Amino acid sequence: MQFVAVERADQAEIAAYRHIRERDLAGRHGLFVAEGKVVLSVLLRARVFSAQSLLVVENRLPGLMPLLEETKPACPVYVASQAVMDEIAGFHVHRGILGIGCKTARPGVADFLAGLPEEALLVVLCGITNHDNIGAIFRNAAAFAADGVLLDETCCDPLYRKSIRVSVGAALKVPYTQDGPVLSLLDALESHDFSVMALSPSAPLDIYHQPRPKKLALLLGTEGEGLPEPVLKRLQTLRIPIAADFDSLNVATAAAIALSHFTRLEH
Amino acid sequence: MQFVAVERADQAEIAAYRHIRERDLAGRHGLFVAEGKVVLSVLLRARVFSAQSLLVVENRLPGLMPLLEETKPACPVYVASQAVMDEIAGFHVHRGILGIGCKTARPGVADFLAGLPEEALLVVLCGITNHDNIGAIFRNAAAFAADGVLLDETCCDPLYRKSIRVSVGAALKVPYTQDGPVLSLLDALESHDFSVMALSPSAPLDIYHQPRPKKLALLLGTEGEGLPEPVLKRLQTLRIPIAADFDSLNVATAAAIALSHFTRLEH
Repeated sequence: MQFVAVERADQAEIAAYRHIRERDLAGRHGLFVAEGKVVLSVLLRARVFSAQSLLVVENRLPGLMPLLEETKPACPVYVASQAVMDEIAGFHVHRGILGIGCKTARPGVADFLAGLPEEALLVVLCGITNHDNIGAIFRNAAAFAADGVLLDETCCDPLYRKSIRVSVGAALKVPYTQDGPVLSLLDALESHDFSVMALSPSAPLDIYHQPRPKKLALLLGTEGEGLPEPVLKRLQTLRIPIAADFDSLNVATAAAIALSHFTRLEH
Repeated sequence: MQFVAVERADQAEIAAYRHIRERDLAGRHGLFVAEGKVVLSVLLRARVFSAQSLLVVENRLPGLMPLLEETKPACPVYVASQAVMDEIAGFHVHRGILGIGCKTARPGVADFLAGLPEEALLVVLCGITNHDNIGAIFRNAAAFAADGVLLDETCCDPLYRKSIRVSVGAALKVPYTQDGPVLSLLDALESHDFSVMALSPSAPLDIYHQPRPKKLALLLGTEGEGLPEPVLKRLQTLRIPIAADFDSLNVATAAAIALSHFTRLEH
């Protein structure tokens, strides 16, 4: 393995880590930031992503060595003092462990769907632009063994720094792709024999009285606006029963409840 | 109603709003901050809390008038420009609506439990110190019509600014009390005929194979450490089935799944 001591925050090698809070690496450079040991261990074990480099505070290195020896990353491992790390990143990195990953080209929707098993559970997202919610939805998709996540073009990037962190690495683990408007996604899902069920607070049927189809796609929209009318009209809608006088569930929470109910995990 | 124009950020009347991000009003002054129209409407309708004052950006007042006319708050309504509001609060208050509420004395645990119906669903929290999680748990408790929340002494205050905001006002709506160590709470729950079930990822039984007792208390601990060993030993434990290779659920998400399953809301 290739360990490189970093003495100064302005060294050229660690430019990708500079002021990472203010920049959207994912959008601009085809890169993303992995923070902390748990997320880094997902990155180093990921099949479709690879690490470009790691940046570790020196006193964190001993605790990280078993992971590095197991996964043998080919990339440089930069090692710095906490002060230099904080100066590079532009904030106090209390976890002391960062990595830069490389994005890969996402498959087209048809290829993505064709690669799924005969019995499959998908999460489909329309217009989710909150990074925390995207991250939490990926975490829940992983927890309930969903086979993938499909995002329409109006959702934000799941590889944004905060989404990856909130997902506890699941954004690097759960297969996903993002492409086109939601109505095209519905066409593709239907032509691949998916039953698409839209979660909507005003739906007449609830999830608990609905049998699980073999290929199920659960569609979720934003908390405020909900799913667009043409989408709701076209699909079967389902609600999660909640108190009549209460507004709504968080979208990631709604996803978790529906996934927990519909997953084929041993109950 | 008593409207008061505020021209300068240093006026004495609005001292409670000064730099509200940096201060924990709840802990230090017996007050709390309500942000935004939705939370404010819960506060103005609350039975156990009252508003000490409101601070509204002038262009938000027309939209707020129906609520004010309906609830007729006795407190002063301070009205300021956006610039003065932002200077007072110490950040850009994009919702343009703030309120200061007064905490009330919480009932003792025995009184709290004695006041619950014959058939009741409670959430009991041990060691939850993350304000977002506390807020999200209250939101879910309200959504699934739980009868109350019981917090041990090591949990953080649900009336912290961020908790109230994340709860979408549910922290001002769902009855709760906070008192003493978790083992005392268990004693009190048992002497009031509650079946206490602890959610734990390593439990042998899962929630979906468990009938709902009439009086059910769901106990949740922190995501990292989980519940203390003496607590787990004493109680029936239940898990939510998740993928074997995945770490854990967010604690508020786990609460939502269990509440959705055990609630008596029409399914």
